[in-house]
Amino acid sequence: MEALAKISELSYALDTFYFLMSGALVMWMAAGFAMLEAGLVRAKNTAEILTKNIVLYAVASVMYLLVGYNIMYPGEAVNSFWPGVSFLLGADNEAAAVVAGGDDAPYYSVRADFFFQVVFVATAMSIVSGAVAERMKLWSFLAFAVVLTGFIYPLQGYWKWGGGWLDGLGFLDFAGSGVVHMCGGAAALAGVLLLGPRKGKYGPNGEIYPIPGCNMPLATLGTFILWLGWFGFNGGSELKISDVGEANAVAQVFVNTNTAAAGGVLAALIVSRLVFGKADLTMALNGALAGLVAITAEPLTPTPGLATVVGIIGGTLVVFSIVALDKLRIDDPVGAISVHGVVGMWGLLAVTLSNPDATLGAQVTGLATILAFVFGASLLVWSILKATMGIRVSEEDEYEGVDLAECGLEAYPEFTSQG
Amino acid sequence: MEALAKISELSYALDTFYFLMSGALVMWMAAGFAMLEAGLVRAKNTAEILTKNIVLYAVASVMYLLVGYNIMYPGEAVNSFWPGVSFLLGADNEAAAVVAGGDDAPYYSVRADFFFQVVFVATAMSIVSGAVAERMKLWSFLAFAVVLTGFIYPLQGYWKWGGGWLDGLGFLDFAGSGVVHMCGGAAALAGVLLLGPRKGKYGPNGEIYPIPGCNMPLATLGTFILWLGWFGFNGGSELKISDVGEANAVAQVFVNTNTAAAGGVLAALIVSRLVFGKADLTMALNGALAGLVAITAEPLTPTPGLATVVGIIGGTLVVFSIVALDKLRIDDPVGAISVHGVVGMWGLLAVTLSNPDATLGAQVTGLATILAFVFGASLLVWSILKATMGIRVSEEDEYEGVDLAECGLEAYPEFTSQG
Amino acid sequence: MEALAKISELSYALDTFYFLMSGALVMWMAAGFAMLEAGLVRAKNTAEILTKNIVLYAVASVMYLLVGYNIMYPGEAVNSFWPGVSFLLGADNEAAAVVAGGDDAPYYSVRADFFFQVVFVATAMSIVSGAVAERMKLWSFLAFAVVLTGFIYPLQGYWKWGGGWLDGLGFLDFAGSGVVHMCGGAAALAGVLLLGPRKGKYGPNGEIYPIPGCNMPLATLGTFILWLGWFGFNGGSELKISDVGEANAVAQVFVNTNTAAAGGVLAALIVSRLVFGKADLTMALNGALAGLVAITAEPLTPTPGLATVVGIIGGTLVVFSIVALDKLRIDDPVGAISVHGVVGMWGLLAVTLSNPDATLGAQVTGLATILAFVFGASLLVWSILKATMGIRVSEEDEYEGVDLAECGLEAYPEFTSQG
Repeated sequence: MEALAKISELSYALDTFYFLMSGALVMWMAAGFAMLEAGLVRAKNTAEILTKNIVLYAVASVMYLLVGYNIMYPGEAVNSFWPGVSFLLGADNEAAAVVAGGDDAPYYSVRADFFFQVVFVATAMSIVSGAVAERMKLWSFLAFAVVLTGFIYPLQGYWKWGGGWLDGLGFLDFAGSGVVHMCGGAAALAGVLLLGPRKGKYGPNGEIYPIPGCNMPLATLGTFILWLGWFGFNGGSELKISDVGEANAVAQVFVNTNTAAAGGVLAALIVSRLVFGKADLTMALNGALAGLVAITAEPLTPTPGLATVVGIIGGTLVVFSIVALDKLRIDDPVGAISVHGVVGMWGLLAVTLSNPDATLGAQVTGLATILAFVFGASLLVWSILKATMGIRVSEEDEYEGVDLAECGLEAYPEFTSQG
Repeated sequence: MEALAKISELSYALDTFYFLMSGALVMWMAAGFAMLEAGLVRAKNTAEILTKNIVLYAVASVMYLLVGYNIMYPGEAVNSFWPGVSFLLGADNEAAAVVAGGDDAPYYSVRADFFFQVVFVATAMSIVSGAVAERMKLWSFLAFAVVLTGFIYPLQGYWKWGGGWLDGLGFLDFAGSGVVHMCGGAAALAGVLLLGPRKGKYGPNGEIYPIPGCNMPLATLGTFILWLGWFGFNGGSELKISDVGEANAVAQVFVNTNTAAAGGVLAALIVSRLVFGKADLTMALNGALAGLVAITAEPLTPTPGLATVVGIIGGTLVVFSIVALDKLRIDDPVGAISVHGVVGMWGLLAVTLSNPDATLGAQVTGLATILAFVFGASLLVWSILKATMGIRVSEEDEYEGVDLAECGLEAYPEFTSQG
Repeated sequence: MEALAKISELSYALDTFYFLMSGALVMWMAAGFAMLEAGLVRAKNTAEILTKNIVLYAVASVMYLLVGYNIMYPGEAVNSFWPGVSFLLGADNEAAAVVAGGDDAPYYSVRADFFFQVVFVATAMSIVSGAVAERMKLWSFLAFAVVLTGFIYPLQGYWKWGGGWLDGLGFLDFAGSGVVHMCGGAAALAGVLLLGPRKGKYGPNGEIYPIPGCNMPLATLGTFILWLGWFGFNGGSELKISDVGEANAVAQVFVNTNTAAAGGVLAALIVSRLVFGKADLTMALNGALAGLVAITAEPLTPTPGLATVVGIIGGTLVVFSIVALDKLRIDDPVGAISVHGVVGMWGLLAVTLSNPDATLGAQVTGLATILAFVFGASLLVWSILKATMGIRVSEEDEYEGVDLAECGLEAYPEFTSQG
């Protein structure tokens, strides 16, 4: 008996440690988004996108602690008028942990779960910052971040991961192609539509002018960071590692996540070579991310071969989606809507290729529900912000760069003559 | 019995692995300091600050192996004339590990402990390099690094963590707001006072001229790296994870560390907006670090709500401290003295807010002791260096940039016209 | 019995988790090589080197899955005509896992092993990209990557790690000073010899013109990333952590890996100061990598003191090797052949200093075999590519920079006047 109790404790410790390491990797994705976006905007808007990225992470951390976690996982909180507050105030949710107890006993620390979940919220919000870059007001963006991370994300997250109705329906989304990535993409799309394109991006006669990003090594670094962080994102979403079956599952998720990203890179590189005549680096980077988004809804059940194919399709899709959005004059400086929104949808549908429990009906229902809800709610919030604080910087500030106007400093004061 | 012995072995393995992963995260902070400092200096002094950062890490690694570890943890070493040497020579400290033995038996590898400790020393020394940037001679700096990492840091570290008199007094410092951060800040302050401000920083009539850092994405990346590494820094300082209570504690430390940093970001952003009228990115970054330093002395006992408040106060304090030091003409290019020194003091005092074992008297005693000892010892060493090798580069080298003078190369030869 | 079975499962889970975390750290080295190389080339060739780095990682991931893993570890695959394909198609290699079974039972997930191995292949290939930078055609490089990662690397890897004849001979190479690093160096050397030096590197009368890298912070970041990743590279190569002896061994590997790198930094810094009169940053960075390569063949048996010496010799050797290769007009923009090839040889020989099982004869045989085979096979493949696709960009493209010609974009469009 003493041995069995000790084994339960060790198992609890290992699963908690696995959660914490996975969460740390996902937290690192915040740096990845910051570098990716800073690399893909112009020098004059770099300090502001960096500010948005670090502050949105802070906002997400605090809002999810205050209200979001409790909305999304009401069952985890203790009974109280406002359970989120009780968590904030340190209510000992672990009190119920009966280590060698029944099947319902927690097998890892609730705080580790909170840590893992909170970094996911930040990921969803990071997706938005890139799409609205180079023209959105800093403080309006942060106000939106408060609402998305505190309310919009947690509510649709509850429907699936908190045990809500989408979960009951049989909708499957392992690590969040829909709940995290398409969610971020939908919120971004609503913002971009209200915001309009950057000055000089589209000509009066349908011309599309490329606006190159200022720092490709940063964009590449950001992609590698995201790739690394995704092992925590998908790998941690197995939620348990402490027996043979679970350990094999986590390892399978790592292999499939890696190979899907690789497939995405190769597909985007080759497609961009065929379509544009050049091996476009930014497309290769977006291909990696597309492969990762695509496999996120189901990284466990595919064979590595199928996972590669899921990534290849994601990487192909993202090139055409970026071209198509530009034709529609939907200006997304970093391609976030295509990578996370469009490929997120593909990821949700791809679940049906390998998971026998998936039904096309449930996947489509989940997809449509999250898309409609997040897009609609975001549109409402962005509209209110537009009517009150305004969401777009002045034309002069946009021309001069938002860095000086919003942040009072330049990102590269010595490197650029035009500042 | 066989089962219990195997459980002990597994537990030992898990705790060792937890130490090694935590240590790897702290080692990564060396990269964070390098990027932060490289981003906040001017282009012409960048190669030299990078050189200082990688070499100080190497110096710390070797000096702590040669002498520091043994000074700080004499109990860990085997009996010998010079225990540090015996460790260096590979004395098998693990020999005493009786796995299923009494309470005193080691429960994880001594070598893992050494690895975890050695990266802490490097952190303390990294704090110094930023404060003395853009004007200190490379080789004098490295000579100081030899003394700090081999002798000054380990001695005061012994007083607390090695079981010395400050520990006996009831002074509490969980992961080193005092032992690491304030220590680094005090050593930096001594150096800055002897070194004087950069040319052009202060005018004759009290003017303060901003000298903007050349690369904000690097500074932001450095901050994210440090934030990530801090999960190892604080999370690893629980020193054990292999049962339910310890696993919950480590998870609590992760949550509190993250939320304190988030609070620091938000506070510094809002305070800088109110005081300067702009959302200053460098202040937001320093706010994150201030929140992290503040929670480091006690990341376990506060509720997440209180941890956020501790970070908010840290983030507020750092803005006013940076302004105040500039008024005192204490020139610290990266704000290291404020972030690590001033906020480190706040962290030590904040322990009393949540830890019932803390007394204000013991905290103040520990604070004053470390501050006085490290400042005094550092002042002595810097003075000797000043009198012998000299510590400041020539006026011409400072004007031209220390990169060409000290390192013989430029950090960005193609990006800047003035080189 | 129930307890023992559960302990076996936990042990399996811990070892699998340790493999996956180690693998994630090694994957991160891909980012390290990308940043290091991007920092050491000129701005006009940066986007292309970034493209090569991310795509080669993708190629390695897919080729090793398709054929490489099966060539290298035939014993791991199930019986089938083409076992690699069965792995690709998801054959359940874990089926044989008898958890509480005999000594031959797998003690961790085969998929975790695959993940750990696949990131090693990418490392070997990353070494090549730096040496051939600034003048090799993108698509020829990628074609070579297909052959190296799918066939050349796995075959010589099989000879040692797959249980082949070099292993039987007693040749020792713990984590791959030879199998990975010297392999990459030999393949790079073959390419460089056929490719010739960059225009403007060597004058007609024996002059050697330095071509400075454009971004030292990136190069430094890359080095720190590699240093961090190496803890997974060497630490994971112990292959097991779940008992006291193994945990102590992994911890020892971490300590020795760190201290060898530190020794390499200090040696290269001091040697470059003595030889060139300046504390050359790029030499310090190469010194760190040389220390890491040197200790990789045997990071377990040396004392920390001896490990430091092994690193010091590596760091000294790399400075003289870089100078010597330049005198031979072998143009390697990042010093990869010296760091990985020359110091890799030293690492293989250094095994005999501490490992009683090593013989100089076996080490030299292994060294000579890998060197001859990889160099010869690579020379053949490069020659075929040269004769068919061509391997060198046109003189005009080299002058203008390969970024615009190959990738159709610039890495830093706003920072450089000549673009």
